[in-house]
Amino acid sequence: MLTQNPRVVFAKRPGTRIPVPGEHIIFESSRSIDLDSVPLNGGFLTKTLMLSPEPFMRERMRDLHVPSYSTHAVLGEPLVSFGLVVVLRSEKEGINPGDHLYGLTTWEAYTVQPYVEGRARHNAEEAPDYTFDVDSLALQVVPDPKGTFPWSRYFTVLGAPGLTAFCGFEGCTDAKPGETIYVSSGASAVGIVVIQLAKAKGLKVIASAGTDNKVEYMRSLGADVAFNYRTTPVADVLKKHGPLDLYWDNVGGEVVELAIEYSRLHARLIMCGSISEYSVAPEQRHGIKNTSMIFKKRLRIEGFLVPDLAPRLAPRFFAEMPGLVAEGKITAKEHITEGLENGPDALVAVLKEGGNGAAGKPVIRVATE
Amino acid sequence: MLTQNPRVVFAKRPGTRIPVPGEHIIFESSRSIDLDSVPLNGGFLTKTLMLSPEPFMRERMRDLHVPSYSTHAVLGEPLVSFGLVVVLRSEKEGINPGDHLYGLTTWEAYTVQPYVEGRARHNAEEAPDYTFDVDSLALQVVPDPKGTFPWSRYFTVLGAPGLTAFCGFEGCTDAKPGETIYVSSGASAVGIVVIQLAKAKGLKVIASAGTDNKVEYMRSLGADVAFNYRTTPVADVLKKHGPLDLYWDNVGGEVVELAIEYSRLHARLIMCGSISEYSVAPEQRHGIKNTSMIFKKRLRIEGFLVPDLAPRLAPRFFAEMPGLVAEGKITAKEHITEGLENGPDALVAVLKEGGNGAAGKPVIRVATE
Repeated sequence: MLTQNPRVVFAKRPGTRIPVPGEHIIFESSRSIDLDSVPLNGGFLTKTLMLSPEPFMRERMRDLHVPSYSTHAVLGEPLVSFGLVVVLRSEKEGINPGDHLYGLTTWEAYTVQPYVEGRARHNAEEAPDYTFDVDSLALQVVPDPKGTFPWSRYFTVLGAPGLTAFCGFEGCTDAKPGETIYVSSGASAVGIVVIQLAKAKGLKVIASAGTDNKVEYMRSLGADVAFNYRTTPVADVLKKHGPLDLYWDNVGGEVVELAIEYSRLHARLIMCGSISEYSVAPEQRHGIKNTSMIFKKRLRIEGFLVPDLAPRLAPRFFAEMPGLVAEGKITAKEHITEGLENGPDALVAVLKEGGNGAAGKPVIRVATE
Repeated sequence: MLTQNPRVVFAKRPGTRIPVPGEHIIFESSRSIDLDSVPLNGGFLTKTLMLSPEPFMRERMRDLHVPSYSTHAVLGEPLVSFGLVVVLRSEKEGINPGDHLYGLTTWEAYTVQPYVEGRARHNAEEAPDYTFDVDSLALQVVPDPKGTFPWSRYFTVLGAPGLTAFCGFEGCTDAKPGETIYVSSGASAVGIVVIQLAKAKGLKVIASAGTDNKVEYMRSLGADVAFNYRTTPVADVLKKHGPLDLYWDNVGGEVVELAIEYSRLHARLIMCGSISEYSVAPEQRHGIKNTSMIFKKRLRIEGFLVPDLAPRLAPRFFAEMPGLVAEGKITAKEHITEGLENGPDALVAVLKEGGNGAAGKPVIRVATE
């Protein structure tokens, strides 16, 4: 029996613009799938429960000649992002119907895994050595929380954002109690975990976001100084509440320049993302003019990507974090958008304004079980 | 009996211009000193043999409201730089007539030490925490080379530049054999030591300077790729001979942007100086637009200043370097300008074009013994 299998296709590279739904990313429902008989070829069939619109998806849509840390998204194929799926059928040992898995998957209702459509060709010989094969972040079975927390938490503190925050904070900051950290995009899925890890370590936390909702949310997580960067200049806040020992960068551009300006001796700047720059032409980006302060203040600016640090730190993350979440010591919030057809708009909202204005990591619910 | 005591006075802050001799820095010979009877107040009287025109002197001339890593130069007083002096009289225990000392001293023929004129007031409570009290780099007795090398070598490999190169290279680079390093200002007193340390460690060395003389000199020191940045675009060379594992920055600005562009995964950028920016208004400086590559390539950009690393590394430097120099394993060259009256021009030449075009660290000979 055929079942409709709607999906979101990457139809056109957006160049330096924010992708436009219907033009660059298109929801379409012409396909169908026979859930009972589709060949599995030794793999397994999954039903998509939730998907995560994320900035790195935009970076993958860049023009082919632009090098970056991620492989490119594949034109004409479904988008790929972190997702939560449930197994319907399996020919693969260790994967059983009813299992829940979290990891990279395609933006469609049903998928034979490992997915083939949407998977980027990666030739390590040809690609720059810093280009990471995103599709290698395969689906992994995750425990059923049995009601102790919602499944969506795998998209924040217990998933990639939580691991990112943990790896960067534990691996790069050298944070010491009493130090001051500024977290940009503090209400993002990564930001909220950084704020909480920093507070747990005894740091003073300054955090910014783009709506008052989010500011309130960051404050509820313990941020000592939370502010709306759209209404309060970053420089004013850093001048008043700095200088900084640490800056956690999720946005890039001008804020990095300000963080350098308001850093103190031996401050560390941790570069985790550049949301402000993914849809801006290189020549239009903000040029940082105070780089000489790097030696004058003896700063350390360090970029990281989870795969570099995970071998060392992921075991600790998986050992410690679920317990902290179950005890309520680290919390998170997700904002659910219903329906894959609303996926393109949800992604654009993340790229434009860090979500929909509401506090909570945007998650698209594709189906219930 | 009175002896003339000419000096070079810091007369006017140059703002964002290169200082002009006769306007901002003035040679004058109206003073005299009685070498036999000038009161020493427990200190000692020195005769200046050589002085070192250096970029940090320009940074000290900045406007008072501009923060930086160094204390300000004092208006109306003699310039201060590294110098080699010989002791004429002493009331200080451990300092004897005939001793040679190297360290910070004033641009004048004779000085009662520790010098008072030219010494900047430093209030650690009021100054930014990254501002270093330059005058604390006091004169130290140095061994008589007894002809094994010229005294001027204390201005290159055996003095502050050598220690700077050693501390940064050993303390910050994590250099590994087979890696590729690019050294800007490769013919500078610091650059030539970095080149030689890197070659000794088995690195491939790319180095740039602004005259063909200097290019030849860098090649003679072992640089695998040496080029004149005024005639060959840096980008072309890095594209052909990169990517970089390491970049040693002595210049700041646009070259940093290029080094980021041609870095490979996990490259390290060591920020040692910004000669291109000391006489440029902040808003006129080159803005670096590719900072998002810091996380994409997982780069580490680290600034350092010798006083931070010297406690750990200076003992090794003083134990190892003189032997390497005596054996000819590390070499250096100085370019001597005769006469304190030519000091202002020599300093300007360093700020304008990295010296006089000749290879060899510029040194001003004030007097013979």
